[in-house]
Amino acid sequence: MTQTRNLSLDQAYQLALSALLNNGFSQAHAEAVAQNVTHGERDGCASHGLYRLLGCIRSLHAGKVSADAQPKLNDRAPAILQVDAGGAFSLLAYRRALPDFIDKVRANGIAALAINRCVHFSALWADIEPLTEKGLVALACTPSHAWVTPAGGSRPLFGTNPIAFGWPRPGRPPFLFDMATSAAARGEIELHRRAGTPLPEGWGIDSAGNPSTDPVSVLEGAMLTFGGHKGSALAAMVELLAGPLIGDLTSKESLAYDERTGSSPYGGELVIALDPERFLGADRAKYFARAEAMFADMQAQGARIPGERRYQRRQQSELSGVEIPTGLYDEIAALCR
Amino acid sequence: MTQTRNLSLDQAYQLALSALLNNGFSQAHAEAVAQNVTHGERDGCASHGLYRLLGCIRSLHAGKVSADAQPKLNDRAPAILQVDAGGAFSLLAYRRALPDFIDKVRANGIAALAINRCVHFSALWADIEPLTEKGLVALACTPSHAWVTPAGGSRPLFGTNPIAFGWPRPGRPPFLFDMATSAAARGEIELHRRAGTPLPEGWGIDSAGNPSTDPVSVLEGAMLTFGGHKGSALAAMVELLAGPLIGDLTSKESLAYDERTGSSPYGGELVIALDPERFLGADRAKYFARAEAMFADMQAQGARIPGERRYQRRQQSELSGVEIPTGLYDEIAALCR
Repeated sequence: MTQTRNLSLDQAYQLALSALLNNGFSQAHAEAVAQNVTHGERDGCASHGLYRLLGCIRSLHAGKVSADAQPKLNDRAPAILQVDAGGAFSLLAYRRALPDFIDKVRANGIAALAINRCVHFSALWADIEPLTEKGLVALACTPSHAWVTPAGGSRPLFGTNPIAFGWPRPGRPPFLFDMATSAAARGEIELHRRAGTPLPEGWGIDSAGNPSTDPVSVLEGAMLTFGGHKGSALAAMVELLAGPLIGDLTSKESLAYDERTGSSPYGGELVIALDPERFLGADRAKYFARAEAMFADMQAQGARIPGERRYQRRQQSELSGVEIPTGLYDEIAALCR
Repeated sequence: MTQTRNLSLDQAYQLALSALLNNGFSQAHAEAVAQNVTHGERDGCASHGLYRLLGCIRSLHAGKVSADAQPKLNDRAPAILQVDAGGAFSLLAYRRALPDFIDKVRANGIAALAINRCVHFSALWADIEPLTEKGLVALACTPSHAWVTPAGGSRPLFGTNPIAFGWPRPGRPPFLFDMATSAAARGEIELHRRAGTPLPEGWGIDSAGNPSTDPVSVLEGAMLTFGGHKGSALAAMVELLAGPLIGDLTSKESLAYDERTGSSPYGGELVIALDPERFLGADRAKYFARAEAMFADMQAQGARIPGERRYQRRQQSELSGVEIPTGLYDEIAALCR
């Protein structure tokens, strides 16, 4: 069994902050990233947890992320806010844009936030939650690196292109999903490679375009989208919405920019939020109760509410902290010296 | 082989119009429906073609659709337009709302259109095209009747809940997909039932919740979403966005309203449109060329651009008309007398 070390959430945050500051990130960027990876760890998403610090610092040393760029807000239209991350991680740009974005959503009923020129490693659910906490409905998507072949194709073109959606629930955590449009996450294929285990069928193809369950062949070939041509259509939609529509890179362009440094994807993210108050007015409570009835119908037949496992894990982590593999802890601690 | 009858597009439209008027629909509703079913037939979507007239007229006789309601526009917020279809088909409401909706999209950069209290039988691509023709990017979704079980569930709850997305292409038909979030369309299962052929695996479950390839058992049991829990999450999103968010029915509520008359779903549709001019300004052409580069990369490896088959068929139909099964033609002609 992997040896682990228990950290309180505050200890995890301070460890992350220290590693980031010590490697040259500005205070504001280090705080935004430290909070994000601590939240990933807290919610049981180890793939978006403290382990990500290694990649963040590697991206910095490779010259692929800015340590200190100041986000610049640009009020493009009554219902469009743009924030230029200036080549830094998306998180500080999002933080800075959030108050003005929420004002636009409330003022207009729906609004879009384009985050541009950002390096993106974080899970989208973290960008949805601050909106559902304000009672808003929200969608987000971002391209990544070209690792995924379109349905009917044989070579990588799309990213893993996640789509996240959140619905606020009165007195409860939101209904919130955050899913790659690829059949599996790239990290899951890496895990199979390290473990020497075959992949489930339907995850990828080799470089000749043939179906393969060999993780090495798939990493050299291409991943597949979930759900065949429908998932592929959604992946293309994400490329278009959070790439060309907002004046930013496609996954293919992001991978070219990476120059084989293994850094995080670079490009844009699109967030769309809608204000139920502006759609429903005084009828809000009545219709939100109908949504709750649907959730109850789902649970009564054993279907899961997306996000619920994450919130259960969060409660547990807030009480008893998180378990970090000792090897990972030591690697991060070494980055603090 | 099925005997068919060739009709020019104008003959098909006049036949549809005559059947609708003769059964009591107002001129404005009859025109909107006749155009829609003619377009479905023209584009090779027989399941949304002239055959739909039978259901439209059956819904009217069952008292489940208004023959003549006047759509009422309601300017709910700077970026939200609502149109109350008053229990009639969605099409006239959409037609009447379109000019004001486009004004809102251009003025704000993004806007939402909620169509409420509409009976919905038409394909969503027909609601996307008038927006892509104006250079806008658009998304649409609508619940239907509760026929589909959530992932992990055993009973119907969601509708087939289509999502459509369109991207305008300079000098070409749009990139446009319109897909059910169910594994298959309900009509496809009906076709297997009539033909006495088994369903592919993964389409449905019987009323005990077990996987089944028997069309009758699945029609009595429940359909499955495409792509497992990811498709299920998207189906739930459609319920929420085009149901409670806009003050309208879920698929379960729609089916209850139907009272086993076999009428079309009743409820709402949400359309969101975004104006690339407001996102990109002078950079529009540059970034739209990047989208074209992505489409070229798709086609170079044999992947299809969603919608392209429909546009090929359209060109053909405009030249040589459409072939209607003689039996269907006779049924519709009988409705004109």
